[in-house]
Amino acid sequence: MTHPLMQRRARLMGPNVPTFYADPVHIVRGDGVWLWDADGRRYLDGYNNVPHVGHCHPRVVEAIARQAATLNTHTRYLHDTVLDYIERLTATMGHGLSQAIMVCTGSEANDVALRMAQAVTGATGIIATDNTYHGNTTAVSALSTRRPPIGGYPGHVRLVPAPDSLSPLGGSAEGQARAFADHIARAIVELDEAGHGLAGVMLCPFFANEGFPTLPKGFLDPAAQVIRDAGGLILADEVQPGFGRLGSAFWGHEVLGFAPDVVTLGKPMANGHPVGAVVTRPDIMAAFRGAFGYFNTFGGNPVSAAAALATLDVIQDEGLQENARVVGAYALERMGALTHPLLAQVRGQGLFFGAEFVMDDGTPASDFVATLAEGMRARGVLVNRIGRAMNTLKIRPPMPFSRENADLMMDTLALVLAETKVPR
Amino acid sequence: MTHPLMQRRARLMGPNVPTFYADPVHIVRGDGVWLWDADGRRYLDGYNNVPHVGHCHPRVVEAIARQAATLNTHTRYLHDTVLDYIERLTATMGHGLSQAIMVCTGSEANDVALRMAQAVTGATGIIATDNTYHGNTTAVSALSTRRPPIGGYPGHVRLVPAPDSLSPLGGSAEGQARAFADHIARAIVELDEAGHGLAGVMLCPFFANEGFPTLPKGFLDPAAQVIRDAGGLILADEVQPGFGRLGSAFWGHEVLGFAPDVVTLGKPMANGHPVGAVVTRPDIMAAFRGAFGYFNTFGGNPVSAAAALATLDVIQDEGLQENARVVGAYALERMGALTHPLLAQVRGQGLFFGAEFVMDDGTPASDFVATLAEGMRARGVLVNRIGRAMNTLKIRPPMPFSRENADLMMDTLALVLAETKVPR
Repeated sequence: MTHPLMQRRARLMGPNVPTFYADPVHIVRGDGVWLWDADGRRYLDGYNNVPHVGHCHPRVVEAIARQAATLNTHTRYLHDTVLDYIERLTATMGHGLSQAIMVCTGSEANDVALRMAQAVTGATGIIATDNTYHGNTTAVSALSTRRPPIGGYPGHVRLVPAPDSLSPLGGSAEGQARAFADHIARAIVELDEAGHGLAGVMLCPFFANEGFPTLPKGFLDPAAQVIRDAGGLILADEVQPGFGRLGSAFWGHEVLGFAPDVVTLGKPMANGHPVGAVVTRPDIMAAFRGAFGYFNTFGGNPVSAAAALATLDVIQDEGLQENARVVGAYALERMGALTHPLLAQVRGQGLFFGAEFVMDDGTPASDFVATLAEGMRARGVLVNRIGRAMNTLKIRPPMPFSRENADLMMDTLALVLAETKVPR
Repeated sequence: MTHPLMQRRARLMGPNVPTFYADPVHIVRGDGVWLWDADGRRYLDGYNNVPHVGHCHPRVVEAIARQAATLNTHTRYLHDTVLDYIERLTATMGHGLSQAIMVCTGSEANDVALRMAQAVTGATGIIATDNTYHGNTTAVSALSTRRPPIGGYPGHVRLVPAPDSLSPLGGSAEGQARAFADHIARAIVELDEAGHGLAGVMLCPFFANEGFPTLPKGFLDPAAQVIRDAGGLILADEVQPGFGRLGSAFWGHEVLGFAPDVVTLGKPMANGHPVGAVVTRPDIMAAFRGAFGYFNTFGGNPVSAAAALATLDVIQDEGLQENARVVGAYALERMGALTHPLLAQVRGQGLFFGAEFVMDDGTPASDFVATLAEGMRARGVLVNRIGRAMNTLKIRPPMPFSRENADLMMDTLALVLAETKVPR
């Protein structure tokens, strides 16, 4: 509680409200990939994916300001912009994913996606990985909680071991796809035996919270076959990998090479304006709309739709997917040239990459990576950590991140690595 | 499907997406209490509570535009505005309600409130009325669904008969409070017997979706005693009655005269920007923060906080609560002077009022009220209907609604009543 605002937060927001860093940053201004704190100190933002096209992008700000001054209602009245946006959004997807429900958060999107799978299958069983996060509603937080919810863990949820590129499930990169599918098959049997049946499997196509393991294209094919054979749906949570971040494709499921039944979107969708969406095929949408009454007051309102549309415009007009591919490859190359006794693996794709650190005895270097993140912050670069043991440095900057920004980040990382004591 | 946008909606949003009116309105512009459609036709908005301080209020628009151009991050970094807002918001409440979690929608707020009650009590049973709506997440939609969810109705939810001022539960206005408490007491016994126990009771202090029956101050006292004796929490959903709408008090629970443990907020909070909140006492907040990990990326971001703060400023600076009291009383008086063979009761408070219509044989005049709402729309005034049988005209305009607006509305209603065929 060093910062005076921390006491005020505790008084007004209560205990255990999460913050980044031992001494949290008091940010007051943002522009592109840069943030400034209250003391005027500048930080390179190497972490925030919500300001996808850059902090305070003028085109998004202008779209919000203009539409907020013109009209903000809801979809019980007719409006063009929400339709323009869904048309543009679905045009970026294949696999018959042509319809969408606009919501306000990725959590709301995933909450709807679960019900879509229920509506199509008549079953309630859901499978996710054992080291993931899909949102904060009661229903979706049941997929990612580490604490038993009041009333106990819900019986319709099964968590399967997440893939891992340092210690692959099946012992080898080749065996991992089969092993992942086998775990899902076992979970399906358990759900059937418990009377829940299989509604679907929810996963991030980049396994971002799992520590973004390096996985070959086609990795999910055996699992997808098992899911389809059991009649379940594949719900792709694209909140983190989507909108061009991975560089080589606009969506994470394209990179991994599978056909999702439902795609959910959130954080980066409108550059910080609270917008999410659920995209699916007409047959699934009809099943959902037939089984559940659903209306979202703020979802798809004219201002939110305008913010999302401007964000998509900027991604496309400024070539940000291609930028993610080129700068991401460059940053990864520079990161791969770093040497450090604990550096076990450098990995990632596009503007979502990082490095896993492991101790001499093979245990995760969790504290060391925490110290690294603090050291980077002290030197003016914001990054963070992720993975089962939180021993992977996680870098996921706004999409206009440049080669020069990558140089500054990697120079700083080299410096921090050199000055951080290696634990024994 | 008369309007060409309806076909485009069906193609992009799927079937059964709710709209208002047989021929939905294509609104393109809003200002204060006025809306304009694509043909330039002007409508008096007598229905929308989301644009609480008036459509496109310049101070709210300016706050959004300014903050969006300066910084939009999240509460893992420190920022003043979210704290300024929570301080101002909680200053309007008593009963020790001094802490808040900012979220994006009323649905998210209620979803959190349910878990607060679980955290405090260790139980999961929730009671609501049998004709209500508390939001669209999986967890809260279980309180208001009219269709069995996939997997069946959840066992931890009990719905009790809603109060009604035309046909009061206990046969008289006096008996109704006791009867409502008795129904809750029975539901608590059922929840105990089923092993769920009582977490809490969620209700709108104005019983807005129940048709806003006229209830005496103190109506909830017997029920509140029953709930407290059983160790449950009272979760007050103030999404509709809050922020001064009822005129005589800033919050619905003050009007009814009870002390809620948790207050949830949504729609009108930031004049259309997606913002909601859960306000509670420190002991309840600590229990929730101890039992559940919770973080909401967009919740309390600087732009949302600025929008909410500007909205609260305008409510207070423009005296909108007092306006609701004075204009609401005037409108209700004018409505009470209307005569019509089917008009059974005129009721409401502040800028939330309406009239219930009943057929000669005592059955609800649901179709008649639907025709009335369509007739009002045809004459340029937007209103709607509510209640168990949807036979109550529901009027809930933006808060700057003036005496002149009320005159126009009541003159139009008199005209529409006169020209609408009385069904036999």
